[in-house]
Amino acid sequence: MAKLLKGAPVAAALTGELIPRAEALKRSGITPCLAILRVGERTDDLAYERGALKRCESVGIAVRRFVLPGTATQSCLMDTVEEINQDDSIHGCLLFRPLPKMLDEESACAALAPRKDADGITPASMAGIYSGFGIGYAPCTAQACMELLRYYGIEAAGKRAAVIGRSLVIGRPVAQLLMAADATVTVCHTKTRNLPELVREADLVVAATGRAEAIGPECFREGQVVLDVGINWSEARQKLVGDVDFESVEPLVAAISPVPNGVGSVTAAVLCKHVIESAERLR
Amino acid sequence: MAKLLKGAPVAAALTGELIPRAEALKRSGITPCLAILRVGERTDDLAYERGALKRCESVGIAVRRFVLPGTATQSCLMDTVEEINQDDSIHGCLLFRPLPKMLDEESACAALAPRKDADGITPASMAGIYSGFGIGYAPCTAQACMELLRYYGIEAAGKRAAVIGRSLVIGRPVAQLLMAADATVTVCHTKTRNLPELVREADLVVAATGRAEAIGPECFREGQVVLDVGINWSEARQKLVGDVDFESVEPLVAAISPVPNGVGSVTAAVLCKHVIESAERLR
Repeated sequence: MAKLLKGAPVAAALTGELIPRAEALKRSGITPCLAILRVGERTDDLAYERGALKRCESVGIAVRRFVLPGTATQSCLMDTVEEINQDDSIHGCLLFRPLPKMLDEESACAALAPRKDADGITPASMAGIYSGFGIGYAPCTAQACMELLRYYGIEAAGKRAAVIGRSLVIGRPVAQLLMAADATVTVCHTKTRNLPELVREADLVVAATGRAEAIGPECFREGQVVLDVGINWSEARQKLVGDVDFESVEPLVAAISPVPNGVGSVTAAVLCKHVIESAERLR
Repeated sequence: MAKLLKGAPVAAALTGELIPRAEALKRSGITPCLAILRVGERTDDLAYERGALKRCESVGIAVRRFVLPGTATQSCLMDTVEEINQDDSIHGCLLFRPLPKMLDEESACAALAPRKDADGITPASMAGIYSGFGIGYAPCTAQACMELLRYYGIEAAGKRAAVIGRSLVIGRPVAQLLMAADATVTVCHTKTRNLPELVREADLVVAATGRAEAIGPECFREGQVVLDVGINWSEARQKLVGDVDFESVEPLVAAISPVPNGVGSVTAAVLCKHVIESAERLR
């Protein structure tokens, strides 16, 4: 029986740290505020939005929603980003992605003011996470992995880590964060040969392929810690599943984060942390 | 006997590609021009400067040298960077580092205009190399490794690569370039355990520790390709040596770049390539 690395206590602990900081900000006249920018009505976005709203309320962060129709033009999107940039009462912004295909996502991300980039989508934040220079913020899901390790007392330094997936949303940033924490990191991807052998060598595995239950027991061995970042809807099983085939892998490893109720439950609390930090810089 | 991956033919081939491009630029009224910004008289800087001057002359790139005294103030350095930024006749800049300790290197690098960042030192170039979005330029030495592989027909896709060293000058950028070329990359560093075992698993090894002959035969096996990026002066041996103990490793592996006359011989040609590309963007 693996230890279950549940997200809820991690999020609760983070929230507990953030509440007094939000109160202190308010005493000094600053109400921390998150802008949520959503285009259209994707189910995934709406689910995450509900979670973010609830977490912000717990912490004491105001939320302003900017909701554009699914048919919004690029100039409408860019104008909205600029309005968020200019509004001094907004301290952080969450832009739901992927955007509808006809929109230029890269330009929209690059237009956001780096100081409001609470989810690490601007080039400035990317340079920061790559260089370790402390510019901008890490993507919330990548940071959520690190918060989970911290909460459960799992040391990354000196460990071998395998990150499966090289996306800018999770694979690449979590690899940089783990390396900064002195892990020896291997990034695996669709062109990796002998994936099972390679992943079995790692002490710590981060699964971020975006493919439902694609990583099976052949990749695991006893003693490993597994963070499953995938959140996939399984038609066959009519429920949310991770990238790891939980039922066959859980008996093998030392610890694993479940899906749902694992890494995903920490992401919104990390978003709140970034908004609070951004607001604190104004004092 | 390993195949020797010498840099000279790679640099010559690159130079051959660049000469007609420099000529075409001149015909359209643009003389490609590199600014070299040096503080003080470090031996390493002077050696690289000589190589860069010679290579620029071969290609047909003008060079303007800005040489500040070793006692230069930060404001003097920043003014010089700004002059280079403002001067439309300059297309690329090489800033020698490390700068003297009392200078703020990070600020100086960040002040350079990204379009003139021929050696990949600005946050914009770092975001570019990390994201693959095509912003800015890779550090020349990291790109030189890729040019060496390309010239000798060594495919990175699907291979396992070990990068030893995580500096921003070479370890981190070359890891990103190798991953972008579809290698499965592990970045090793001072906190890595079982380094020899891990490096032996790789098909391709990039040594960038900056410690003379620190990587011995225990890290290697037959069939491997080794790029030695180190350039260290050995007092004991009174000559330049790499990070790899060449004499004991060369008999084991399939191919290895020598020091001197390996990767280091390609760096100035890559610098020229970046200056030409930057000048071409003006047409």
